[in-house]
Amino acid sequence: MAKVGQRYLEIDPYRLIEKGFHKDKNAVSESLFSLGNEYSGIRGFFEEGCSLPGLVGTYYNGIYEYALEDTPSAYKGVVKRTHFTINSTNYLKVKIIVDGTVLDLANAEIEDFTRVLDMRNGLLERSFTWKVSGAKVRIKFTRLLSMTRPHLAYQGISFNSDKDVSLKIFFHLDGTILHWGKDNYWKADQAFPNELFLRTLTTNQSLLTAQEIVTNASFKEKGVAPKEVYSGYTAIISPNEEVKFERFVSAIASKKGEAYKELAPVAKEDLKIAKKLGLEGLLKENAEFFEEHYAKSDIVIDGDETDQQGIRFCIFQMLSAYHGLEGDNNIGAKGLTGEAYSGHAFWDSETYCLPYYLFNDQKAAKNLLMFRYLTLKEAKERAIDLDCEGACFPIATRNGKEACTLWQHASTQLQPTSAVAYAIYHYMNLYNDEAFMKNYGAELLGEIAKFLYSRGSYNASNTHFGYYGVMGPDEFQLMVAHNTYTNLMGKKSMEYALSVLNNPKYGTKELLKKLGLDEAKLSKIKKACDDMLILYNPETKLFEQHQGYFDLPHIDVDKIPMEEFPLYSHWTYDRIYRNDMIKQPDVLMFLFLYNQDYSDEIIKANYEFYEPRCIHESSLSPSIHSILASQIGKDQEALNFFGFATRLDLDDYNRNTREGLHMTSIAAAWMNIVYGFLGLRSDRPILKVKPTLPERWNHYGVNLTYHGLPVRFDVYADHFEVEVKGGSIELAYLNQVYVIESKRSFPR
Amino acid sequence: MAKVGQRYLEIDPYRLIEKGFHKDKNAVSESLFSLGNEYSGIRGFFEEGCSLPGLVGTYYNGIYEYALEDTPSAYKGVVKRTHFTINSTNYLKVKIIVDGTVLDLANAEIEDFTRVLDMRNGLLERSFTWKVSGAKVRIKFTRLLSMTRPHLAYQGISFNSDKDVSLKIFFHLDGTILHWGKDNYWKADQAFPNELFLRTLTTNQSLLTAQEIVTNASFKEKGVAPKEVYSGYTAIISPNEEVKFERFVSAIASKKGEAYKELAPVAKEDLKIAKKLGLEGLLKENAEFFEEHYAKSDIVIDGDETDQQGIRFCIFQMLSAYHGLEGDNNIGAKGLTGEAYSGHAFWDSETYCLPYYLFNDQKAAKNLLMFRYLTLKEAKERAIDLDCEGACFPIATRNGKEACTLWQHASTQLQPTSAVAYAIYHYMNLYNDEAFMKNYGAELLGEIAKFLYSRGSYNASNTHFGYYGVMGPDEFQLMVAHNTYTNLMGKKSMEYALSVLNNPKYGTKELLKKLGLDEAKLSKIKKACDDMLILYNPETKLFEQHQGYFDLPHIDVDKIPMEEFPLYSHWTYDRIYRNDMIKQPDVLMFLFLYNQDYSDEIIKANYEFYEPRCIHESSLSPSIHSILASQIGKDQEALNFFGFATRLDLDDYNRNTREGLHMTSIAAAWMNIVYGFLGLRSDRPILKVKPTLPERWNHYGVNLTYHGLPVRFDVYADHFEVEVKGGSIELAYLNQVYVIESKRSFPR
Repeated sequence: MAKVGQRYLEIDPYRLIEKGFHKDKNAVSESLFSLGNEYSGIRGFFEEGCSLPGLVGTYYNGIYEYALEDTPSAYKGVVKRTHFTINSTNYLKVKIIVDGTVLDLANAEIEDFTRVLDMRNGLLERSFTWKVSGAKVRIKFTRLLSMTRPHLAYQGISFNSDKDVSLKIFFHLDGTILHWGKDNYWKADQAFPNELFLRTLTTNQSLLTAQEIVTNASFKEKGVAPKEVYSGYTAIISPNEEVKFERFVSAIASKKGEAYKELAPVAKEDLKIAKKLGLEGLLKENAEFFEEHYAKSDIVIDGDETDQQGIRFCIFQMLSAYHGLEGDNNIGAKGLTGEAYSGHAFWDSETYCLPYYLFNDQKAAKNLLMFRYLTLKEAKERAIDLDCEGACFPIATRNGKEACTLWQHASTQLQPTSAVAYAIYHYMNLYNDEAFMKNYGAELLGEIAKFLYSRGSYNASNTHFGYYGVMGPDEFQLMVAHNTYTNLMGKKSMEYALSVLNNPKYGTKELLKKLGLDEAKLSKIKKACDDMLILYNPETKLFEQHQGYFDLPHIDVDKIPMEEFPLYSHWTYDRIYRNDMIKQPDVLMFLFLYNQDYSDEIIKANYEFYEPRCIHESSLSPSIHSILASQIGKDQEALNFFGFATRLDLDDYNRNTREGLHMTSIAAAWMNIVYGFLGLRSDRPILKVKPTLPERWNHYGVNLTYHGLPVRFDVYADHFEVEVKGGSIELAYLNQVYVIESKRSFPR
Repeated sequence: MAKVGQRYLEIDPYRLIEKGFHKDKNAVSESLFSLGNEYSGIRGFFEEGCSLPGLVGTYYNGIYEYALEDTPSAYKGVVKRTHFTINSTNYLKVKIIVDGTVLDLANAEIEDFTRVLDMRNGLLERSFTWKVSGAKVRIKFTRLLSMTRPHLAYQGISFNSDKDVSLKIFFHLDGTILHWGKDNYWKADQAFPNELFLRTLTTNQSLLTAQEIVTNASFKEKGVAPKEVYSGYTAIISPNEEVKFERFVSAIASKKGEAYKELAPVAKEDLKIAKKLGLEGLLKENAEFFEEHYAKSDIVIDGDETDQQGIRFCIFQMLSAYHGLEGDNNIGAKGLTGEAYSGHAFWDSETYCLPYYLFNDQKAAKNLLMFRYLTLKEAKERAIDLDCEGACFPIATRNGKEACTLWQHASTQLQPTSAVAYAIYHYMNLYNDEAFMKNYGAELLGEIAKFLYSRGSYNASNTHFGYYGVMGPDEFQLMVAHNTYTNLMGKKSMEYALSVLNNPKYGTKELLKKLGLDEAKLSKIKKACDDMLILYNPETKLFEQHQGYFDLPHIDVDKIPMEEFPLYSHWTYDRIYRNDMIKQPDVLMFLFLYNQDYSDEIIKANYEFYEPRCIHESSLSPSIHSILASQIGKDQEALNFFGFATRLDLDDYNRNTREGLHMTSIAAAWMNIVYGFLGLRSDRPILKVKPTLPERWNHYGVNLTYHGLPVRFDVYADHFEVEVKGGSIELAYLNQVYVIESKRSFPR
């Protein structure tokens, strides 16, 4: 199925530009013009309110609630109460009244509408001329989230008019906001005209939002309700004088639920600094933040401005969603840009997002792993819930507990757990961070190995070990035995855990005692690894996705009519599962993760077998296929799968960008270029590249950090260059290892 | 796990007798002392109310409602709104006040309590002496449901006292009754002091309950609320005179929702007849009903009074739940004796209950099949919901629609559908009812064949046909491929359908056109039958329960600690499924149903393989095992599995009789004697027997109807006798066919 984009923004290398207001795209624009600083995220909604379909959303990383009601289940181990990141105080809300008319872009007569998001500093600007009351009123909104001072936000609003008109404007802090348009998860605590302090209903977290408004207008009134406060101003907008408002906001979200009296002085100090810096100062700090990060991770695409804008948008959004600010933060499937997927982190964090951070920011990469260490307690409880030992990491979570109420996913998908082991391995390959391994990694691996051992079983004749009743990454095969991805990742994870625990540096007596792992148990785990069934046919070079997969009824996926997609809406649930159609890479996924363990012949055989059976219903699927297609020389296919990867959201290919950005697909787009076209491999200690140049590009450059050094690759039609600054790195290319000092060129 | 009974009733061949009030058994007694006449059922609750735990329940066959809310599911084909038989107007309710004290057996001081249910006429009597206000008041309650006049019920209450005391008594018709102790599903329509006419909330069915009270006490007051009406009386109970009340009730439930004015004259006429007959007349009719039915189906057990009482209770309850009164009635898993299983009929109706009716009442047997014909429309809609053709019969239903909201059962268990085909085959074996086949059976079979063909698939190499993503009768194996029961029953059902449709008597042009079955389609179905994969190993003589079953991790079920049962409460949901443990017979089930297709060697091999893997978590499991154990000469095992079969509820072995009687286990107990000890086989046109005598019995006699003739088997230690009245039958015994006229004796 060819997907068709719906482009309405201008092409520009560093900016998102909307010219003229696209009413029908209101909710899509809200997602695309989101701002985030990891600490919080705000959708690009109109501060003055708008009666078009949309979602006024403000979210804080780690501020969450439980569902008001249980999802009933009679079965043990099934999650009954889910939790999710909640919509929070809207501190941008204003009400604008000119000569008695309330501004609402759904029906206001406007012209010269422009909206611009500058990805070099995170400044969002919107301006238009409103024809009202016989006048032309020019309004400009400015918005900023500080990247370096996470509490701080800035809002500017200015008015000009060709005739005298009267303005009334109210600046709200609105805590009555509804989550999923349905429920409010906040209870009142303290409210003052410029401060609102709320608590979550049951998790008892807290959020203080404080504002200070600087204006040349006159203060008129204030209002205080338990969950909403405001300050109102009036002015006459005349041709001679601009009426201007600046709202400085300090929003402090306390995951552990600190009291008002603890947070109020911090907010006061925040606002003092913010006013001192002013917009200019805040912008300068943001620009420095992005400059620094782009220097380490920018991708330059020469010859395709749409891809250039696309990949910059991806990197901008990755940094907005997460940059390692706090160890207990994570990356929701939609970042902090919407309510779909409930702000949950999935195994995507380790599998699709981590590589970007691994190659530009060790602290961010480490903190992503720390999230799992900090939620080890919950993962151990979950393992017990599942009648297992060790730690079972959740398929979806914000607080470490399993949030998925569907047992067929939450109880049978083991990939979140093996993904944590793989992530530690991957991180250690690049940073060899012994302190991390000693303090956190080894314990995580020990608990993971215990889980993966206890969840497995020997077959009837005790000849092989493996996993029964599982679902692999391909979510179209349910309750299968010996899913090869699951078995292989189980084996690799346990083997890595054993190698770490057998290293006296890490596997100390204290740790082994804490883990309850004695010699006998370690030997059993070792034996299970040795006995792990891996369904591989050396003649065909094919791995079987699971026991019995090759005998499943065949479906020609190309013959499924377009209008039957998405299948979950058009096919009976069980029907989706009873054939050889797959949703996303499964065998191909481990061939990507442990890529260097397999020959190109094996990869080619499996790619050619499984790709035609895959419907790519996951937005993560095409990038993995593109990467492997590149590897086996199918350049055109690689480019086809890359297709719109960088612009999935910008051009709304999946028709659901309105719900929020596809954060993990955004990360996969980065992987697609770096692992795909550049051919980077990092699954062994020495980095490997095998660059290709997509035919629609003239040249591209990739900035990475490797072993702490900045590395730049530039790929041209006939050669590529590698430049290292401040030291040397080893690099494998075409089966040879080179030591790169400063710059080196290779023919292609 | 040895189950332990909790006997508290007296042993008596024809009566249930409770001596002394067993407070802690209140809810159990409510179930055991239930009365039913297929049209309706009343639990044995105390009419005066009781504050002990219990369930005041009155149910009508076919009067049902939908759940107030959906069970949410994002998936297609998953049932979102269930339905269930609802608790209805309580027409036995009284309030009894003696000298200002309200009678409540939870705390009243009483003596000489006796409760007796006479299974020869369905009379329920309860009497006790209440010490109240310094007097000894003797109260006797009498209750009857007419077996021949389905609307009619009788309640008698009489009072004696050794001293003058004042009595106030109120006779209610109470429509405010709660279902599941939670919701009332009735809306008010018409209410008069002695009549209450209500409608169901959304199904718009109607129920008129009319009463007439005959008494020597004085009328005092009446009350009419929209959903509850009453008449109140006063009297002085003196040593000289008994105060006596008789309440005649006509309760008319209209499935199609007739109006008050249509039903009121019927009720009036009913009450006239009832009063004329009086208790005596009604009792006489009931006695005749039971006499007639027992003559056709009684089982006499000589040498074990507990089993004698047990099997009589089973037969009494079968007749109470169902005797073919109406074609759109069915048998709920709990009959009409409780709210568990929601009044739903399962495949148990055809598989476990039908044989009893087949051998004593053609009309009842036929009407049980008619239920499926009358709900063919809903079954066809369900097939469409499941992206299939033909008719898919529901796993649980009252109105023909699927009521089970769990997709893993409702979308993957095909046995309800093949059970209908088997039932038609079974019925035709015994009655060769050509009119039924022509008018209903052939069409049913055609739609069943279409479904079973469309739900199946060919494997990848197109060499064999079968079912993928199914759950067989054994509910501990989920989403399996080639479950042998499912494949075999699919094959047999389609083959039978083809043989019927190929018979020009039934497979008329009109019918084939209506079914949309042309030559090409019929050939395809034929080929699918021929290609059906049946996993059988001729060397071991073992059928594999499903593809891959033999390689599943083995669990020694005897080593599972007692306290971990029931497993659903103690084991993680998915853990139950990932090993070779089974819940109930699966391979053994088809070896029972198509018994004469298999040699004793095959049955023995499979019994010995599968029985040790079975935990018998279904109450239907032991009887099938007992029947097959008998067949292969494992008499002691057969007796062990029979164990408490006839007394599962009487002695509350499963500790949940309080929720209602296990109606299909009751039917299985009958099968256990007839198919097990008597060794009857009816899966081919000629009846076969192979009697054994359980060692704890001296002799037993079984009454059956076969080809319209009454047949009596008497089995003794060294011989057995067969007696036929009014004609001759063929009977196979030890590989020889005998023609029996009048009486014949065979050595054993």
